[in-house]
Amino acid sequence: MASTQKSLADVTAERIIKYIIDNKLKEGGQLPNETALSSLMGVGRSTLREAIRSLASRNILTVQQGSGIYVSHNTGVADDPLGFTFIENKEKLVADLMEFRMMIEPRSAALAASKATPEQAQELLLLAADVENCYEKGVSHSEADALFHAKIAEISENVILPQLEPLIMHAIDMFIDITHSSLKEETIKTHKAIVNAIQKNDPIAAQDAMTLHLIYNRDRLRNTLAQK
Amino acid sequence: MASTQKSLADVTAERIIKYIIDNKLKEGGQLPNETALSSLMGVGRSTLREAIRSLASRNILTVQQGSGIYVSHNTGVADDPLGFTFIENKEKLVADLMEFRMMIEPRSAALAASKATPEQAQELLLLAADVENCYEKGVSHSEADALFHAKIAEISENVILPQLEPLIMHAIDMFIDITHSSLKEETIKTHKAIVNAIQKNDPIAAQDAMTLHLIYNRDRLRNTLAQK
Repeated sequence: MASTQKSLADVTAERIIKYIIDNKLKEGGQLPNETALSSLMGVGRSTLREAIRSLASRNILTVQQGSGIYVSHNTGVADDPLGFTFIENKEKLVADLMEFRMMIEPRSAALAASKATPEQAQELLLLAADVENCYEKGVSHSEADALFHAKIAEISENVILPQLEPLIMHAIDMFIDITHSSLKEETIKTHKAIVNAIQKNDPIAAQDAMTLHLIYNRDRLRNTLAQK
Repeated sequence: MASTQKSLADVTAERIIKYIIDNKLKEGGQLPNETALSSLMGVGRSTLREAIRSLASRNILTVQQGSGIYVSHNTGVADDPLGFTFIENKEKLVADLMEFRMMIEPRSAALAASKATPEQAQELLLLAADVENCYEKGVSHSEADALFHAKIAEISENVILPQLEPLIMHAIDMFIDITHSSLKEETIKTHKAIVNAIQKNDPIAAQDAMTLHLIYNRDRLRNTLAQK
């Protein structure tokens, strides 16, 4: 544990977590207001606020001023869940993230291909088109790109993979930052090959296409780092 | 971001993070005491305490009563970084964690084999022996087992993999819980094969041995879940 002694606010935070689970509240689900929650937990207003702030900093709750207290998107997954902020060597971090994606994403694409419904494949196709639009308009594609990869994780039906979204996002942002890269033709092409394989429910082709996609990107990263 | 409005405590927490990075403080490094830190950050004692509590809940700082404020082990990686607490179906979670380990660990073992010094291989050998001792004594091997796998992640030199330690720990705990498993001969044997390959700096053999190890375990999990 992080601290040797638990404050009343910590205990209250744990009880709020239990409340969320027991009441099967999901992302976007609303909790009772401060007054009700404070009497429900049997603690004063300031203790409750401290507990809520702690849960907000762990991305468990989102407080919307004047509206209410909600369960956060990607509940319990912080912006920086693996502490990348504290890894000093950013070039090593971006290279190691690429290796990490190489471990995860080809097999994730294969799983997605084995599960995808026609509707899901269509959604993925639209996300690939969004990335291409960014390319044509000359605007940053980092968010669209991250959403494309997050959708594959979602289609895979594995419950861990979508939780890695902030890591993949981080990896894409750092990659763009370091390679100063506008999007390349290869990205568009290999994205299309991935969509195509998932649409056809062909896991091997999906795994190959994702591997190729990452190899292209890793190669560019390697060249960039070698020139420094 | 988790909250729409940043409190003074949040801003102070971010400045403490910046302080840790700028001063290159590592795990176990000590920060100035409360009085000094409070004047350094230009905030009152109660705001500072709130900031410190928030950093402790994110496993960035560890407060030891009477001793001081330290940078936490696995800085910034919470006990439950990916929010597994909020995943309801625990049987699906344990099966998906096994798939996740299958993505990560064979390649992680290969990396470790390509980098391991004789000293590191020796350390790993001792950790495998610890697991075997637990088996012979009939006590829980979950912690020793997690340390064995964490050591491989460390030897790999990839900066992401050691940060996954709480996930692997979680996976091993849940696996033992669900299969009610005492350790099996296969675990001992395949651990030995992994050590052996890493000792010989043979990445392919290490990858094969880790894959075999995980397949054995996944098979047992599959059988257990099928009987339910």
